[in-house]
Amino acid sequence: MRVGFVHDVDTESHLSISLEGMSQEIEIGLGKKGRLAYSLDDISIVPSRRTRDSGDVSTAWQVDAYEFDVPVIAAPMDSVTSPATAIAMGKLGGLGVLDLEGLWTRYEDPQPVFDRIAALPADEATSAIQRAYAEPIKPELITMRLHEIRDAGVTVAGALSPQRTQQFYSTVVDAGVDLFVIRGTVVSAEHVSNTHEPLNLKRFIYDLDVPVIVGGAANYTAALHLMRTGAAGVLVGFGGGAVSATRATIGVEAPMATAIADVAEARRDYMDESGGRYVQVIADGGMGTSGSFVKAFALGADAVMLGAPLARATEAPGKGMHWGAEARHQTLPRGYRTNVGTVGTLEEILYGPSHQADGTTNFIGALRRAMASTGYVDLKSFQRCGVAVNAHRGV
Amino acid sequence: MRVGFVHDVDTESHLSISLEGMSQEIEIGLGKKGRLAYSLDDISIVPSRRTRDSGDVSTAWQVDAYEFDVPVIAAPMDSVTSPATAIAMGKLGGLGVLDLEGLWTRYEDPQPVFDRIAALPADEATSAIQRAYAEPIKPELITMRLHEIRDAGVTVAGALSPQRTQQFYSTVVDAGVDLFVIRGTVVSAEHVSNTHEPLNLKRFIYDLDVPVIVGGAANYTAALHLMRTGAAGVLVGFGGGAVSATRATIGVEAPMATAIADVAEARRDYMDESGGRYVQVIADGGMGTSGSFVKAFALGADAVMLGAPLARATEAPGKGMHWGAEARHQTLPRGYRTNVGTVGTLEEILYGPSHQADGTTNFIGALRRAMASTGYVDLKSFQRCGVAVNAHRGV
Amino acid sequence: MRVGFVHDVDTESHLSISLEGMSQEIEIGLGKKGRLAYSLDDISIVPSRRTRDSGDVSTAWQVDAYEFDVPVIAAPMDSVTSPATAIAMGKLGGLGVLDLEGLWTRYEDPQPVFDRIAALPADEATSAIQRAYAEPIKPELITMRLHEIRDAGVTVAGALSPQRTQQFYSTVVDAGVDLFVIRGTVVSAEHVSNTHEPLNLKRFIYDLDVPVIVGGAANYTAALHLMRTGAAGVLVGFGGGAVSATRATIGVEAPMATAIADVAEARRDYMDESGGRYVQVIADGGMGTSGSFVKAFALGADAVMLGAPLARATEAPGKGMHWGAEARHQTLPRGYRTNVGTVGTLEEILYGPSHQADGTTNFIGALRRAMASTGYVDLKSFQRCGVAVNAHRGV
Amino acid sequence: MRVGFVHDVDTESHLSISLEGMSQEIEIGLGKKGRLAYSLDDISIVPSRRTRDSGDVSTAWQVDAYEFDVPVIAAPMDSVTSPATAIAMGKLGGLGVLDLEGLWTRYEDPQPVFDRIAALPADEATSAIQRAYAEPIKPELITMRLHEIRDAGVTVAGALSPQRTQQFYSTVVDAGVDLFVIRGTVVSAEHVSNTHEPLNLKRFIYDLDVPVIVGGAANYTAALHLMRTGAAGVLVGFGGGAVSATRATIGVEAPMATAIADVAEARRDYMDESGGRYVQVIADGGMGTSGSFVKAFALGADAVMLGAPLARATEAPGKGMHWGAEARHQTLPRGYRTNVGTVGTLEEILYGPSHQADGTTNFIGALRRAMASTGYVDLKSFQRCGVAVNAHRGV
Repeated sequence: MRVGFVHDVDTESHLSISLEGMSQEIEIGLGKKGRLAYSLDDISIVPSRRTRDSGDVSTAWQVDAYEFDVPVIAAPMDSVTSPATAIAMGKLGGLGVLDLEGLWTRYEDPQPVFDRIAALPADEATSAIQRAYAEPIKPELITMRLHEIRDAGVTVAGALSPQRTQQFYSTVVDAGVDLFVIRGTVVSAEHVSNTHEPLNLKRFIYDLDVPVIVGGAANYTAALHLMRTGAAGVLVGFGGGAVSATRATIGVEAPMATAIADVAEARRDYMDESGGRYVQVIADGGMGTSGSFVKAFALGADAVMLGAPLARATEAPGKGMHWGAEARHQTLPRGYRTNVGTVGTLEEILYGPSHQADGTTNFIGALRRAMASTGYVDLKSFQRCGVAVNAHRGV
Repeated sequence: MRVGFVHDVDTESHLSISLEGMSQEIEIGLGKKGRLAYSLDDISIVPSRRTRDSGDVSTAWQVDAYEFDVPVIAAPMDSVTSPATAIAMGKLGGLGVLDLEGLWTRYEDPQPVFDRIAALPADEATSAIQRAYAEPIKPELITMRLHEIRDAGVTVAGALSPQRTQQFYSTVVDAGVDLFVIRGTVVSAEHVSNTHEPLNLKRFIYDLDVPVIVGGAANYTAALHLMRTGAAGVLVGFGGGAVSATRATIGVEAPMATAIADVAEARRDYMDESGGRYVQVIADGGMGTSGSFVKAFALGADAVMLGAPLARATEAPGKGMHWGAEARHQTLPRGYRTNVGTVGTLEEILYGPSHQADGTTNFIGALRRAMASTGYVDLKSFQRCGVAVNAHRGV
Repeated sequence: MRVGFVHDVDTESHLSISLEGMSQEIEIGLGKKGRLAYSLDDISIVPSRRTRDSGDVSTAWQVDAYEFDVPVIAAPMDSVTSPATAIAMGKLGGLGVLDLEGLWTRYEDPQPVFDRIAALPADEATSAIQRAYAEPIKPELITMRLHEIRDAGVTVAGALSPQRTQQFYSTVVDAGVDLFVIRGTVVSAEHVSNTHEPLNLKRFIYDLDVPVIVGGAANYTAALHLMRTGAAGVLVGFGGGAVSATRATIGVEAPMATAIADVAEARRDYMDESGGRYVQVIADGGMGTSGSFVKAFALGADAVMLGAPLARATEAPGKGMHWGAEARHQTLPRGYRTNVGTVGTLEEILYGPSHQADGTTNFIGALRRAMASTGYVDLKSFQRCGVAVNAHRGV
Repeated sequence: MRVGFVHDVDTESHLSISLEGMSQEIEIGLGKKGRLAYSLDDISIVPSRRTRDSGDVSTAWQVDAYEFDVPVIAAPMDSVTSPATAIAMGKLGGLGVLDLEGLWTRYEDPQPVFDRIAALPADEATSAIQRAYAEPIKPELITMRLHEIRDAGVTVAGALSPQRTQQFYSTVVDAGVDLFVIRGTVVSAEHVSNTHEPLNLKRFIYDLDVPVIVGGAANYTAALHLMRTGAAGVLVGFGGGAVSATRATIGVEAPMATAIADVAEARRDYMDESGGRYVQVIADGGMGTSGSFVKAFALGADAVMLGAPLARATEAPGKGMHWGAEARHQTLPRGYRTNVGTVGTLEEILYGPSHQADGTTNFIGALRRAMASTGYVDLKSFQRCGVAVNAHRGV
């Protein structure tokens, strides 16, 4: 609470008490405070006095020089993005990011491994994933997979973890990517190590010719520092997704509504401090339905990276089974395989038509409808959309 | 937070800090705020120091020149209102609104279609509904259905969506209606379109001879603008009902307690600005029990439009199956068929007697009892009834 | 929020802003506010720096001239209090109140009726209850039942509803009661009727020789007015119990923690205004476990009226089936029969020993233990016990 | 709310209003307030701008002269700590505390008793526990068990309840312990008794040669008074664990996040008042997963006492069945036996590797990972870690 008081004996005094944010800082116990954080489920979009035809709405999105019809990125998860679905996503107007540390770069033919992971009962799946990913990454497979995507004529994007970036980035750059993604549960601009020289993100990005998207970050400070490294985009979130157990295992969680809004504010402040650099804010994880997908934009996201919703595609390599990179840690897996099922083709998931009202298909139709219902014409203006907070979370 | 400070060197100073509404605007994240919104489940009616005989209480309601014994409107949903149940509602002292874009105006004999929708398993019902409503609307059936209701001597009301109003309103007016309802998920006073001239609600209502009820709107601004079009009543709500999946699909939701109170405030302000025009506030959707039905009035509603509760009548055309207009969208259905079951006749649902305490029968008895327990004699004064907010939602 | 500002040019100014209660008045929507209300489940008792032997603690309670070892009243519900269990309660140091409009005063031998109600499936039980209570009340049975209790040498108490009090009170008084209970869902000091002269509580109590306990009331104003009628005790609550559906049917609910604290404040203010009359605050309903029973005292109750916990006694007339007076309303039942089961004798429920940790037995042991753990010696001082509010309700 | 106002006619005035803690004191009802209390489930750890290698992190902990690799104490519960597992904990770098009033000091060979308790159905287990613990404690068995642990060369710790401390402490001291634990549900520095001279904790601790750990306490005042007795450590919590029913039975509960933060503040204030004595804050109970274990440190704990997580070890004497001291009370048991199952060896639970992401194994790996993700090098600095409060508790 900031209080300003200007006193002047000769004139009327003015007292202004700003209570902004006051109710957000909660005293958990004496001497320990924490901010209130909201999930997408806590939030609703609020129509107001103007509506619009949903056909008049634009969902176009651009990062660096790359333009997309729809602001949807298939997550670098083996159950979601194969070379084939990366190509399909590109042809459908979005972007697919291949996990360059996944099964496709460890195995010449990963199909038997996919089959094995899918066939096991739930309580054995994590062990099977750990074994499957113990196989070393083959640089030549990185090159082969990226060439396959490039040959299809779509935007090429591949992801490495921060730990592996130094080892493999030159392979990736030589193979040719349009967008380079550095993705981990928690990625910071300042990693400290006693045993090795850590990746200097700022120098790395400066030296690299291709634009870099980096994350996850889930608050203002972490995101601002990532923006200052020169990244073209920042991934928002960790531990929020359907296949992550980050909360149960290490106590880390970032309710997405608050995380997106915070990082969007970092984008505004960084744009000012940098004299106009606009960093893309990409919500990553925890958007299992088209409803929560839509809310991410209303809270400030420029684009959304989807996992579970696209793992439900008939083309998805996981065939309805879904797991993330956290699940393959050899001693502390922080995610598990889930059965998300199959609901339709990638095209139906993006563009419909829907034949169920469960929010699993026609994500772009839903986004258009929400923008039309609130009167906005493009994604940038939709970020100003009014939202309400549900006092009690609905069931 | 408004702060006023009057300073006078010679006298005691007065500082008044109004914290009204302060705790309602929540900081979701940096730079993004939202209002706290409450559902009817969050609210309880609070008796005070006076009680009254429930027989002395009046539940009369009037819109324009039309008077009703009870403030209950059967929703324009095919599973609720047929010509027959519209007539029954009228004879019971309420009002039934026929959906003029529903099965009754698409099929000469809709019964086989009803049977087909009811017979299918839940996961095929939406597709079946989409197919059934792909059949074109027949203007002559509009005329026929409305004549059937008029011939019974009750108040005649029919509903169109905003999209179809220009196409069919003259048919409706020629057929003769007492009340014209324009109902959609989100209806605004200012629709923008690049491809066609949208319905100018204000001119349309001004030109029309019959009073118009329009909605849904779910907040002060949207409702105030609808009131300024000259509407006789405004429907409050969208996405709150038992058969709506608006939240999961497009992220739009309006917790009803907050929505009703907001629109009631718009009614007060519009009455002042218009020099005395009183617009009926009609809560629409999300009132599945007599308890929540009663709360709607305590929060400011003049009347309530019921769906699911009346779909549970033995006379209901859905025979216990229930779905709304949202479910029939061809590419983005935002509702689904539910099985609400059958609990008694329309008369028992309105007037009892009840033989269960689950809030599904004797809605008017419950309203009378609540008014009596809090000492109010009519609906208008009951709108001032004290309410409490449950700190945690009960189960 | 009250603000005081004292300004003096020559001295330091003092600004005091009292934020008491500020966060309690919630804006539900524009123009409609409600107080936040807490249930017993939201509250925890907080030990502090002193503890005590539980054997040193007193649980004695007194109303008017009647003294009790334990502050427990068996509710006037047919499934809880028969003449036999009223006597048993008295011999165990508590009080049993017979419902004088229940089965015991309608039937010479109510056992077959009890059997019928218990035998029916849940969905037919309400109808059976309605039929059973359609039998007229027999004044001679009122006399007989009260004499039976008096003959056992325990304190005699009987309850009537406000509606029947004028009709039967002289029968009751002539039969001889020590305590007269007037109990309804909502009882006010000022009942208005167009058709008959309502009971004037104040004159009635003034004229009566026996002390009167009256309720339910659930807030400060209602309770203060009841205290002004001269009542010896006020029952707190309505619609909170295990067998009440008041919330679903008529939207009325009173979370008990807030209700008890409010009425306790009315007791303090009335004691001041009356020059020292101390009215007993009796929490009535919603205390299904010994944990919530204990909390009622910590929030300000002088005694507790128990329903479900005593319906679980082997001696209970309902034999594990439980229902309240609300369930017998002929057209709008607001409660239902539940199966609460049987857990032990009345003595075990009051005094233990427990062989389960589910809070269903040894209520007095639990009360003693809680008082000992927080260092209090008697019930009156335990009302000042520190409590915490759980930010999120536990499961 | 503290208000400071500095007035100066010649200069600008400054008004500072500190609203610290304001929103924490809740008005439950008129005249009754309570603090908002948070559980570990309500809290999330928030990474910020720096990360670190998890191998660079130290989890060392020290109490008095005793040093440990890991800040984990096996709780004095029969289902967790036997002489054998106490030795195993010591060899793994932690500490095991033997319950000196448990089965191991009542029976020469407790194995048949363990078997009987494990074999019974849930509703008979509490009675069986009550019978098993009715057997008297044998001082010679106390001696024998402690010698067995000492002979293994690990730190020796045993626990008594406050009620039994006077009776058995000399036996314990003569047998030789490194750390003396006094543990009860609620332990205060000032116990009052009319019938006997209670334990004077301050004098007892002063006279004793071995360092004493004492608790549970769950708030600032209670903990500060315990610290003033000279205790080396304070146990935080009561009634929060998986096997405790303190809430249902006596209404006492201490959400752990608030309790830990409060006691940590007492530690800071006591360190100042005592001229530098640092009392160990040991979170005790309610940490069923590695995620909540990690959060305890972020809220201020120096070490954690684990029950259920270690009862899931293959070596655990309960063989997957788990119960606490509260369950054995002869007339008011406040806990029950639960089946927590078996998930791996003690070593796997502490150090992994994990093959599930459910937070039941690799607690130390999780702690290291969380410290690394937030950039802290040791436990003391990790206590300053940023945390957020989830607006609505996740599922």
